Amino acid sequence: MNRTVRFHETGGPDVLRLEPIEPPAPGHGEVRLRIRAIGLNRAEIMFRQGSYIQAPSLPSQLGYEAAGEIEALGPDVTAFAVGDRVSVIPAFDVDAYGLYGDVSLAPARALVAVPDGVDWADAAASWMQYGTAWGALVGVAGLKAGQTVLITAASSSVGLAAIQIANMLGARPIAVTRRSDKAEALKAAGAVAVIALEEQDVVSEVMGITQGRGADLVFDPVGGPAFPALLEALAIGALAIIYGALSDAVTPLPMLTVLVRDITIRSYGFAAVMQNDGQLREMKAFVTEGMRSGALRPVIARTFPLDEIVEAHRYLQSNAQVGKVVVLP
Amino acid sequence: MNRTVRFHETGGPDVLRLEPIEPPAPGHGEVRLRIRAIGLNRAEIMFRQGSYIQAPSLPSQLGYEAAGEIEALGPDVTAFAVGDRVSVIPAFDVDAYGLYGDVSLAPARALVAVPDGVDWADAAASWMQYGTAWGALVGVAGLKAGQTVLITAASSSVGLAAIQIANMLGARPIAVTRRSDKAEALKAAGAVAVIALEEQDVVSEVMGITQGRGADLVFDPVGGPAFPALLEALAIGALAIIYGALSDAVTPLPMLTVLVRDITIRSYGFAAVMQNDGQLREMKAFVTEGMRSGALRPVIARTFPLDEIVEAHRYLQSNAQVGKVVVLP
Repeated sequence: MNRTVRFHETGGPDVLRLEPIEPPAPGHGEVRLRIRAIGLNRAEIMFRQGSYIQAPSLPSQLGYEAAGEIEALGPDVTAFAVGDRVSVIPAFDVDAYGLYGDVSLAPARALVAVPDGVDWADAAASWMQYGTAWGALVGVAGLKAGQTVLITAASSSVGLAAIQIANMLGARPIAVTRRSDKAEALKAAGAVAVIALEEQDVVSEVMGITQGRGADLVFDPVGGPAFPALLEALAIGALAIIYGALSDAVTPLPMLTVLVRDITIRSYGFAAVMQNDGQLREMKAFVTEGMRSGALRPVIARTFPLDEIVEAHRYLQSNAQVGKVVVLP
Repeated sequence: MNRTVRFHETGGPDVLRLEPIEPPAPGHGEVRLRIRAIGLNRAEIMFRQGSYIQAPSLPSQLGYEAAGEIEALGPDVTAFAVGDRVSVIPAFDVDAYGLYGDVSLAPARALVAVPDGVDWADAAASWMQYGTAWGALVGVAGLKAGQTVLITAASSSVGLAAIQIANMLGARPIAVTRRSDKAEALKAAGAVAVIALEEQDVVSEVMGITQGRGADLVFDPVGGPAFPALLEALAIGALAIIYGALSDAVTPLPMLTVLVRDITIRSYGFAAVMQNDGQLREMKAFVTEGMRSGALRPVIARTFPLDEIVEAHRYLQSNAQVGKVVVLP
């Protein structure tokens, strides 16, 4: 029997139900997948709660990052074959498909072959984090070898992904965290330096590391009181990419710093990059190469069987994990 | 006798002295001008005070916006002829030439022919303000017909220039001021609407004017507490250009607004645009066309003879004027 996860009302983890389905027939541009692993994302919690940008049409399926085998092809799909091992990149709206289940449709555009030697869990856990970090560092900023990037919230999955991608590019990732207790772990993850906001002066540390030039890029999902110092630590003409607003406090914009250092600040969301076919193709090639070589290797916090999808969501929501939560049908 | 303005020490308006000079011989890429009118700029006050980005080498000349007749050509200057009526665009460092005087050298790259029917005062008063506004609205933002731009500090010379240039482009300039007392003057100057920050809600006013879409661009030299509302009044994917920091108060950066509306914020300075030969050429053609047609016509606050350069600087520094201060040798 094939099962899928549905919710009939918005709410806590308990609204998720495992229900039987008939394997659906793929339409134009679609394939049907036998799902082998599912990567869980925070957006799915918000969608389940009804607090996401898109509201669910109830009853709703859930899930948009997974890996599995192709079981059937839509009439016009020629780039893949039945039996191919593929990952599904979350390059579509969260309400478009429901990958939580034994079997699901998925858009061929968002598929990418799983490299040899990469297991199902890693194949399902990589694309949101590496895609998000690639889109910002390469797609938007065009980060180059020898350049320096400040990565805040560095212990998050996207932060760790950005560290690994910066290293793949030959750039220098500096991890910025609140306290120094994660410094060794972040250095082990590839950071060339770790700066603890509550213990060190970001500007003088960065200027020391860059011989007074400043960093070329900051990649920040936080904002808040630390933001001005991040901009003061930038080089002339540098870019600040913000992709979240985790701080509850006011974020001061240091106007004079922005003017004197000729800084650009821009918003970034993964979805916009993934709508661009050229960038999606480029990202697939880069991340596949990194997964194949081992330069990109996701941290998996814990895996759950599909039967325990409610517990898996509860665990994800607890924020106790370091790394990705993966569900195995 | 030919005279030039020099200062032997930094300080107030009184440090400026009118001193005799021999007409200098133009070098490579230079011409010698018989100066007919000089446009005064705030940067020159700061340079005189020693508070500018560049420090003067004492004794120092002063002035970088003027108009006059070409009296002599450097050995390699072929684009102009002796007798040509030209404006000097401030497209070089403030300490590179000293246009306050009867006669001065000037770089041929920064010259542009005065259109027929434009008098010396207008020819000397136009290029800083129209060049600055063009560089932001066209050079950086690529503002197009039908788009809406919010212009703060709208009564300043650059603000008024931006209103005129937006109209030339077929775009819709909305003037943003503190109080409504200048509303009629700003509408007469070409603003399609005037919003008084202290009396009206910027966001709902702009949304009303744009049918809920928001403005495409904000051009702001102020920052401060009004800044978040300016960003909230923008359309998805819009740009905010900051080119000054007139407010003494903290400028809050509304992170969620920036993320949800996919906003880019960038610093802008006239100097950077003017280093680009292609943009300088394009700007010369655009502003010349506007001056010829009358679409661009600078407001002249007051003219002074060269003998009264000290009084002219004092008046400029008083901030009592509306429009440009011009000195006539």
